[in-house]
Amino acid sequence: MAVYTQVSDQALAEFLTAYDVGKVLSFKGIAEGVENSNYLLRTDQASFILTLYEKRVHEEDLPFFLGLMRHMAARAVTCPLPVPAMDGQLYRTLNGRPATLITFLDGVSVKAPNVAQCEAVGAALAQFHLASNGFELTRANGLGVRDWRPLFDKCAPQANAVMPGMRALIAEELNALESEWPEGLPQGVIHADLFPDNVFFLDDRLSGIIDFYFACNDSFAYDLSVTLNAWCFDDTQLFEPEKARALLRGYESARALTQAERKSLPLLCRGSAMRFLLTRLHDWIFHPDGALVAPKDPKDFLARLEFHRQNDNRLLELLP
Amino acid sequence: MAVYTQVSDQALAEFLTAYDVGKVLSFKGIAEGVENSNYLLRTDQASFILTLYEKRVHEEDLPFFLGLMRHMAARAVTCPLPVPAMDGQLYRTLNGRPATLITFLDGVSVKAPNVAQCEAVGAALAQFHLASNGFELTRANGLGVRDWRPLFDKCAPQANAVMPGMRALIAEELNALESEWPEGLPQGVIHADLFPDNVFFLDDRLSGIIDFYFACNDSFAYDLSVTLNAWCFDDTQLFEPEKARALLRGYESARALTQAERKSLPLLCRGSAMRFLLTRLHDWIFHPDGALVAPKDPKDFLARLEFHRQNDNRLLELLP
Repeated sequence: MAVYTQVSDQALAEFLTAYDVGKVLSFKGIAEGVENSNYLLRTDQASFILTLYEKRVHEEDLPFFLGLMRHMAARAVTCPLPVPAMDGQLYRTLNGRPATLITFLDGVSVKAPNVAQCEAVGAALAQFHLASNGFELTRANGLGVRDWRPLFDKCAPQANAVMPGMRALIAEELNALESEWPEGLPQGVIHADLFPDNVFFLDDRLSGIIDFYFACNDSFAYDLSVTLNAWCFDDTQLFEPEKARALLRGYESARALTQAERKSLPLLCRGSAMRFLLTRLHDWIFHPDGALVAPKDPKDFLARLEFHRQNDNRLLELLP
Repeated sequence: MAVYTQVSDQALAEFLTAYDVGKVLSFKGIAEGVENSNYLLRTDQASFILTLYEKRVHEEDLPFFLGLMRHMAARAVTCPLPVPAMDGQLYRTLNGRPATLITFLDGVSVKAPNVAQCEAVGAALAQFHLASNGFELTRANGLGVRDWRPLFDKCAPQANAVMPGMRALIAEELNALESEWPEGLPQGVIHADLFPDNVFFLDDRLSGIIDFYFACNDSFAYDLSVTLNAWCFDDTQLFEPEKARALLRGYESARALTQAERKSLPLLCRGSAMRFLLTRLHDWIFHPDGALVAPKDPKDFLARLEFHRQNDNRLLELLP
């Protein structure tokens, strides 16, 4: 949530000579997105977001991410649309970084979503999954079940310093997840990071989904579990069953879960809690001094993991 | 240039119940301003900047700063206009901080101003000085000539570690400035921080002056010297006489300098170089680890100070 690469008025003007987007009226760095630099650009034609991709997003993935946005936007998923340069390119270079212009979406992200918003995000996630059908590019999930152990190995020596007992708990849980992880669930392109800060609302109407930079091919139900963990726990990490019920109802209003998906959901929720626990633990331990972004507390996802371990059937009861 | 205080959608909605500004369409933290948190708010009526005042701006100064904006805007100085709440207040409280809504100004700040832009900023500064006439509130300059020595005393032990010889040079120069500082020059409200990032342009037309949070009562010619130092040196700290000539010409197109002001200008330029040298040196030495904003290199203003010491009459020759 910071601007890492400064873009001068001159660099902007030179970059925009490749685009047909009108005359610049204003240009401001915004505190949005994870590890990219984002600017809000207003021209006499429209408003745009200019994104400069920093280290975490690899240039070779951009055709997937940007192509996915275009694929989704063409199928009525409200998401930003990359604006091609006059030569047809979806991204160009600015200050030595890949950079793209995307359309600006109205809406505000909500810190504490209400029940109606949870239902809306469930429906939007299902529509996203259905709309991914036919998208020709693929991208492996770099943070899937097979990627968690290397992350844990790196963090394990310092895990108990973050919270006593964390190391043994993760080790035990990781063994279970690796041996029980379901295969053969319905797959497609998933968002993989549909947290409230990546969804815009105008009142209770969902007006946009942003930040496709973790999107990948994996099971739909795993994506649903990510979203449940992101939307259905309160500030104190307490599970909110009404929100979970609404999110699941919203999801199934657009796409019915298979029996195998339903049965797997509690384990998938443990898995997605593990995924965010491990990446946050990693960033908590290894973030550089003076980082522009404060690392997020890994304990929030430890609490979710413990909830799912202790309430195996709680989610299943909430399914419509 | 960062967002220090996070404002949730709920906190924003509650804050805006006190205003008649329409329905929120978008709300984004922006990387602008020094040590305040700023958000760009778009409603179905207009665009605004929401500023939360952090530690450096004291609440007791807000009537001066916000009143000054209204005074200036009413006199055709293009600057943001504070939007009163429905109860007439110019600022309210948000997340425990004083916060104000101001109108949004189009335009882009330029990193390397051209000659026409320097002339425009000179004219705008003179108009600002003239328009300050009649503003009833006053605010002492907290970073005037009498405030430099305490700053220096605090930094002196570490000055040579920043640059060899800096300590003796500042000490000698401070003695000279304190003994030769001119009294009785024309006074009024000055901006005191009119750097390029505080001025917006649409092409070469000046479209706005922002960031009134150093404004105070002091001599107009001192403000002119601040602006000369800010606009008329290149990236490598080399003096650019064409830009200085244009800035002075612009200034005198709206307000003629008195003979005393002309005569004092070289010394005032040494003084304003000293003011920014000392505050930057202070922030360079004492900035906390992990600060969200990288401190600016004090050596840029040491170079300006040395230029003015060695070229006492260079500016005078450029005056129209």
